[in-house]
Amino acid sequence: MQLPSEQDYIQQISIDCVIFGYQHDQLHVLIPKLKFEGNFFALPSGFVLQDEDLDAAATRILQERTQISGVQLHQFYCFGKANRNSRAFMDLLIRLNPELDNLEQANRKEYDWFTRRFISVGYYALVDINKVIARKSDLDQSVAWRMIGQLPDMIMDHNHIVQRAIHSLRSSFDERLSAFELLPETFTMKELQKMYESIFEKQFPMNNFQKKILDMDVLERLEKKFTGAANKAPYVYRLKDNLRK
Amino acid sequence: MQLPSEQDYIQQISIDCVIFGYQHDQLHVLIPKLKFEGNFFALPSGFVLQDEDLDAAATRILQERTQISGVQLHQFYCFGKANRNSRAFMDLLIRLNPELDNLEQANRKEYDWFTRRFISVGYYALVDINKVIARKSDLDQSVAWRMIGQLPDMIMDHNHIVQRAIHSLRSSFDERLSAFELLPETFTMKELQKMYESIFEKQFPMNNFQKKILDMDVLERLEKKFTGAANKAPYVYRLKDNLRK
Repeated sequence: MQLPSEQDYIQQISIDCVIFGYQHDQLHVLIPKLKFEGNFFALPSGFVLQDEDLDAAATRILQERTQISGVQLHQFYCFGKANRNSRAFMDLLIRLNPELDNLEQANRKEYDWFTRRFISVGYYALVDINKVIARKSDLDQSVAWRMIGQLPDMIMDHNHIVQRAIHSLRSSFDERLSAFELLPETFTMKELQKMYESIFEKQFPMNNFQKKILDMDVLERLEKKFTGAANKAPYVYRLKDNLRK
Repeated sequence: MQLPSEQDYIQQISIDCVIFGYQHDQLHVLIPKLKFEGNFFALPSGFVLQDEDLDAAATRILQERTQISGVQLHQFYCFGKANRNSRAFMDLLIRLNPELDNLEQANRKEYDWFTRRFISVGYYALVDINKVIARKSDLDQSVAWRMIGQLPDMIMDHNHIVQRAIHSLRSSFDERLSAFELLPETFTMKELQKMYESIFEKQFPMNNFQKKILDMDVLERLEKKFTGAANKAPYVYRLKDNLRK
């Protein structure tokens, strides 16, 4: 197992990524399980190289974990409590990990920087869950999509970081047309409504919802396919040409 | 002149404060002029102590510069371009400042950390301009309130930081009831409208504006003072009791 080396990175700064996907009518977050005995979960995280833009570091971390590119990341908050350190976690890591346990005391010093206080910048991304090939880091045992209503307890303040990301996602959801990054290219009004209800954790009356969405003036309605049978299929929509990426 | 010492602070992290005040129907920002020959301006900035919460550091910097307390600071963005360093500025500082110029080369090393790349967390505050006693730092020649439409060119990306702060201020202006932090306790509808027009840099039709504000349901209208004369004075409003701080 190789931890990042001290010289290359800005000290005491980390990035935590909240990667949102949508499936089975539910918002999900990609969460690695760490490879130590017991159940330890942590957001996909990483550090910033000395000559690397903060945004570029976040993009790199996202790509390493999902194998997808071209996804927009949104910086949403910088977490700076003085007690943000992974000392307890690293003690555990050293206790549980045979490889680290065998290190000479001198070599352990290499990892000291890793246990200092870190200020962490939170980024979130909205991804098409079907395009993601989730990849483990050296520290991960597995990675899984987890429903926002059923997140595991994570280390440090990572659950709080997800809550902040959801808050930020909601507050700019319409402005950024975020829904359409999570849905396939075409969808019915009902599918769109279900997504909104999942993200905002509340019901929207159908007529109001449809009016609100159509008033945004961002969708085009596609022709129904003529099937010969009585056509009860719902209309299918997609984002207007000039708004698609 | 004393620069902060390396050991006490988190390396490569700074805080930049955008302090907004309102006077003469215009939004202003508190901007120090640095004490070197030529015109160098920079936002009030500072560093984070190793055992200090990020928010607490921002509050400390605000208090040092304004002598006011109890003001809420809003973190709005973390600036992380790889080229964010003050090397050019420090070269200038050393060239222009006689005291630094006389330092032995060895002693100059003390200031090296100061010239590295910094990731900076932006905070903005809304203050009652009449309560501020602006105080200079060791690096400042003077400090002044400057209209947002007429800001001087500042060092590094500080002008960009102010633009981001204004964007953030606007986007949560109603939700945070920000207007009422900038106005005196009582005000007329016209005064409030002028403030909105200054912040958003656009005109609001009077009737629409009044309706929008009254619909927010946050104001109480005070009784007009009976003066005996034909009473043409406008109504005076203030924030409802339970919303005042």
